Amino acid sequence: MRETIDINCDMGESFGVYHLGDDAGIMPFITSANVACGFHAGDPQVMQRTVALAKTHGVAVGAHPSFPDLVGFGRRNMTLTYEEAYADVLYQIGSLYGVAKSQGLSLQHVKPHGQLNNMAVTDAQLAQAIVDAIWAFDPSLIVIAYGGELMRAAEARGLRVAHEVYADREYLDNGQLVPRSYSHAVIHDVERIVARAVQMVKDQAIPTVSGQHLPVQVDTICVHGDTPGARSIAQALREGLEDAKIMVRTLATTAAL
Amino acid sequence: MRETIDINCDMGESFGVYHLGDDAGIMPFITSANVACGFHAGDPQVMQRTVALAKTHGVAVGAHPSFPDLVGFGRRNMTLTYEEAYADVLYQIGSLYGVAKSQGLSLQHVKPHGQLNNMAVTDAQLAQAIVDAIWAFDPSLIVIAYGGELMRAAEARGLRVAHEVYADREYLDNGQLVPRSYSHAVIHDVERIVARAVQMVKDQAIPTVSGQHLPVQVDTICVHGDTPGARSIAQALREGLEDAKIMVRTLATTAAL
Amino acid sequence: MRETIDINCDMGESFGVYHLGDDAGIMPFITSANVACGFHAGDPQVMQRTVALAKTHGVAVGAHPSFPDLVGFGRRNMTLTYEEAYADVLYQIGSLYGVAKSQGLSLQHVKPHGQLNNMAVTDAQLAQAIVDAIWAFDPSLIVIAYGGELMRAAEARGLRVAHEVYADREYLDNGQLVPRSYSHAVIHDVERIVARAVQMVKDQAIPTVSGQHLPVQVDTICVHGDTPGARSIAQALREGLEDAKIMVRTLATTAAL
Amino acid sequence: MRETIDINCDMGESFGVYHLGDDAGIMPFITSANVACGFHAGDPQVMQRTVALAKTHGVAVGAHPSFPDLVGFGRRNMTLTYEEAYADVLYQIGSLYGVAKSQGLSLQHVKPHGQLNNMAVTDAQLAQAIVDAIWAFDPSLIVIAYGGELMRAAEARGLRVAHEVYADREYLDNGQLVPRSYSHAVIHDVERIVARAVQMVKDQAIPTVSGQHLPVQVDTICVHGDTPGARSIAQALREGLEDAKIMVRTLATTAAL
Repeated sequence: MRETIDINCDMGESFGVYHLGDDAGIMPFITSANVACGFHAGDPQVMQRTVALAKTHGVAVGAHPSFPDLVGFGRRNMTLTYEEAYADVLYQIGSLYGVAKSQGLSLQHVKPHGQLNNMAVTDAQLAQAIVDAIWAFDPSLIVIAYGGELMRAAEARGLRVAHEVYADREYLDNGQLVPRSYSHAVIHDVERIVARAVQMVKDQAIPTVSGQHLPVQVDTICVHGDTPGARSIAQALREGLEDAKIMVRTLATTAAL
Repeated sequence: MRETIDINCDMGESFGVYHLGDDAGIMPFITSANVACGFHAGDPQVMQRTVALAKTHGVAVGAHPSFPDLVGFGRRNMTLTYEEAYADVLYQIGSLYGVAKSQGLSLQHVKPHGQLNNMAVTDAQLAQAIVDAIWAFDPSLIVIAYGGELMRAAEARGLRVAHEVYADREYLDNGQLVPRSYSHAVIHDVERIVARAVQMVKDQAIPTVSGQHLPVQVDTICVHGDTPGARSIAQALREGLEDAKIMVRTLATTAAL
Repeated sequence: MRETIDINCDMGESFGVYHLGDDAGIMPFITSANVACGFHAGDPQVMQRTVALAKTHGVAVGAHPSFPDLVGFGRRNMTLTYEEAYADVLYQIGSLYGVAKSQGLSLQHVKPHGQLNNMAVTDAQLAQAIVDAIWAFDPSLIVIAYGGELMRAAEARGLRVAHEVYADREYLDNGQLVPRSYSHAVIHDVERIVARAVQMVKDQAIPTVSGQHLPVQVDTICVHGDTPGARSIAQALREGLEDAKIMVRTLATTAAL
Repeated sequence: MRETIDINCDMGESFGVYHLGDDAGIMPFITSANVACGFHAGDPQVMQRTVALAKTHGVAVGAHPSFPDLVGFGRRNMTLTYEEAYADVLYQIGSLYGVAKSQGLSLQHVKPHGQLNNMAVTDAQLAQAIVDAIWAFDPSLIVIAYGGELMRAAEARGLRVAHEVYADREYLDNGQLVPRSYSHAVIHDVERIVARAVQMVKDQAIPTVSGQHLPVQVDTICVHGDTPGARSIAQALREGLEDAKIMVRTLATTAAL
C-alpha cells in the first residue's frame, strides 16, 4: 500500500495590486507549490512573497510556466512553435529559480499552467518543447503531469514524473475529466473529496463515474486555491489523509519517483 | 602596467520580429555580453540566440536588467520601491541564468541597463536594491559600474566591481560624461577612440576635456552596439588594444578583480 | 448657494481574472465614472462591462488615463516626454471612446490616474501634454482636477474644469492633502465624511486641519471605490447630500461649468 | 471596365525604439493605410506619426487590429471568446480613432491583422465578433477582407466590404493563396507584379497557377511594406496602374462600394 502522497496547489497568482487565491490559508496544508512566473499571473514581488511563504511552511517550490497571456490568465489556446514554447518555459523556470535561490531554496518540480498544460496532453511537439526545456535546465526536476503526451515525453526523456489526480473532479472511464460544462463535473462535498482522495492513494486507482477503477500511479493530489472554501478543503484533505495513516510529504522525498 | 582589459557590449536587444543592433558582427570582438532580459528588450528566444552566439565566440554572459518599460526601452526614469527594484533585478538575473544554464554556461556579471543604471549612480536605495539582489542570487557575480552609489554599494557589500569606461565619450573633470546634448559629447573618429582606449588602459586614468587625467581602475571598455559603424569600431578597438600588447579577456579571468 | 454637485469614482479597475473594487455596489450612488483604459488597470472587456454598468445607472463616463504601468497600477512616478504623455493620453481616451460609442454614449470628462495626476500638479509640461491631448480629441470634454499645473493648463487652454474635493481626507492650510503617512490623513467616520461633503458644497470651501476655510469652487466629490465600506460611504454621501437639498447630478448638466 | 482601384498597406508597425517597414517611402504610393493599434505592433507615438504621415499624403486611415500578442506580432493562433474578440477589436478601433480625430481625420476602414484575419476566414464566430465590433463603432466603416467568413459576415451585417487581392502572390484555383512554404508562392519580379495588378483590376478576376481566371470584385491591392524593395514595388505598382488609365484612389471615394 502506498504510504505517502504529495498535495500540490497553484500559488502566487496575484499580480500588482490584484489579489487572487488564499495562499496564506492553504500553504500550511500542502507540500508542493506551483508558483506562477509572470506570464499568466505573478510578478517578481509576488514570487518573492510566495517563495518565502512556502519556505516558512516547508513546502517545496516548483515553476508553473504558462503561455504569455496575462489578460487571458493563460487559459486561452495559443499556437507556439517548438522554439517559442521551449524558450518561454526555460525563461520562466529560470526566473523562479532566481527567486528561490535568493532564499536558499532550489526548485523541486515544474507543472505547466492552464492551456499550456492542457494542450500538451495532445500536442506532442508542445509537450516535447516543455520537456526539453525542463531537461535543459535541470534533469533532476520532477514534472507534474496528469497524462497524455506530456507524461509520455517526460518519461521518454528520462525525467521523473509525478502523476497528478484531482480529488474534487469526476473522471470518465477513459481517464479524462468530466468537462466542467456538466453539472456533476466538480465535487463540492468536502467529506466526499477527502474519502475519494484517501481511496485513490490507497488503491492507486481513479474511481470513474461508471464505477470502474482505473489503475494509475497516484503521486500528487491537486488542490484548487481559488474555489470557495479552498482553505477548508485543503485542511480537511490534509487531515483526512493523515488520519488514514498516509504521510503527506513533498515529491522530492517520495521514494516512488 | 595593466596588461589585460575586458570589452563589454549590450547584446540581445531585439524583440519578436524587431531587430536591433549588430550582435553577430560585434560578438567576435568583445569579451563580455550584457544580455537584455525581457524588461526593456529581448524575449526568451532572443535570449537563447544571444547566449548561443556568445558561447560560440567564448564571450562571457551577464545579465542586463532594466526597469519594466518595453515601450520606453528602459530609458525613462521610474520610481521603484526597494522591494520592487530588488525583485525585478532578481527575476531578470534568474531568467537569463535559466537560458545560460540550458547551454552549459554560468553568468559572469550584471550590468544594469539605461535609467536603472543611471539612477543608481545617485540613488543610494536603488543602488542597494540592485546590489542586494545580485548578492542574494550569487555573491561571485561581478558588477559592471561606472561610478557613484552603485559602485559604492557593490564594494561595501563585498561584490567584485568592474569599473567601466567609455572610449567614445568625452569626460568632464569630475569624472562624469559630457552630456549628449553637447556636440562634442560623442567621439566618432575610430582612430581617436582606439588611441584613447589604449591610453586609458595603460594609464589607468580617464583623459578629460580640460586635459586632466583622472586616475581610475579601468577594468572594462563599453562598446555601443547600436551606433553606425559599431562593428568597425569594435573590431578596431579589439585590434588596437591587442596591437598595444594589451590582452583582451573576460572579467572573470582578470586577476585584478 | 450651490445647489448641485457631482460625485465621481474610479471604476473599471479589474483586469482579466482579477477583480478590484465594488463597481456594481457603488455605481448607483455616483454620477461620473472615471473608467480605466488598460494602462494601469482595465482591459477591453472590463471597459465594456463598466460602460454598460454606468449606462444602466445613468452615470456619465469619462476616461481615466494613466502611465503605462500595469504592474505598478500607475502609482509610480515615470518621466515621460511631452510627446509620450500626449500620445498615451490620446490613445487611452480614444480606446474608451470606442467602447462608449458602441453603447451609444459619449465621453463627459477626463481625469488622469494616480501619479500621472499627481505629477501633473507640479509638472507644467506634463500637465500641458495631458491638456493638449484632451483638447485635440474633443474641446468639450471636462477635466477633473484638484489643483496645480493641470488645473491652470486646462483653464488656460479653454477647457471646462471641474474642481474636485475629497470628503474623506484632511486638508492642510495650503490646500494640499495631509499625506497618508499621517494617522489622521484619512477620515473613516461616515457621518463626518457626509457632514464635511455637505459643508464643502454649501460653503464652496475646504475646511482645513487648523480650522480655516479655503474658498474653492467645489464641482465634484471623489469617492474611493477600493476602501473598506466604500459602498456604504457612497450611499451615505449620496443620501446625505440629497437630504441637504443638494442635487447630485453629472458634471455635464451642471450650469457652473 | 473598372476605372479605379485602392492600394492598401500595413503601416505603423514600429514600436518604441524598434523600426519596422519603410512607411515614409511607401506612403506616397498607396491610398489606404492599415495602422497598427498597439496589440501586435505600434505604440501611441508611432500611431501619431503614422497618421500624420498618411495625412500629408492624402492617404485614408484604417484600423489594423490584432490579437493581443506583441512578442508574436499577432502571427500566432489564439482562441478568443466572442466577447474577447469583440472587445479587443473595438478597443483598438477606438484608440486609432482618437489619434486620427486629434489630427482632424476620421477612419475609413478596418482590416484585421495577421492570424486574427486569417482565422476569421474560417472561424464564423470570430468573424462575427470582428464585424459586430466594427458595426457597433461605426456602420459606415469599410471592411477590407480577402474572403471567407469575414467577408460573408460583413456583407450579411450590412457593412461595405472591399475585396482585397495580392498582386505579388500566386493563387490556387479555389481562390486561396499558394502557401508560403512553396517556392513559387511569392512573386518577386516587379514587372510581373505590376502586370498582374493591372490585369486583375481590368478583368476583375484573379489569375491562378493553372491558368484559370476567378471572377472577383477587385477593390484594393495589398502591398507588403516589410519586403526587400517594398518601396520600389509600391512605386512601380502605382505608376503601372496609372499608366494603364486606372485611377488609384481611396476606397471611400470609390463608387462601387
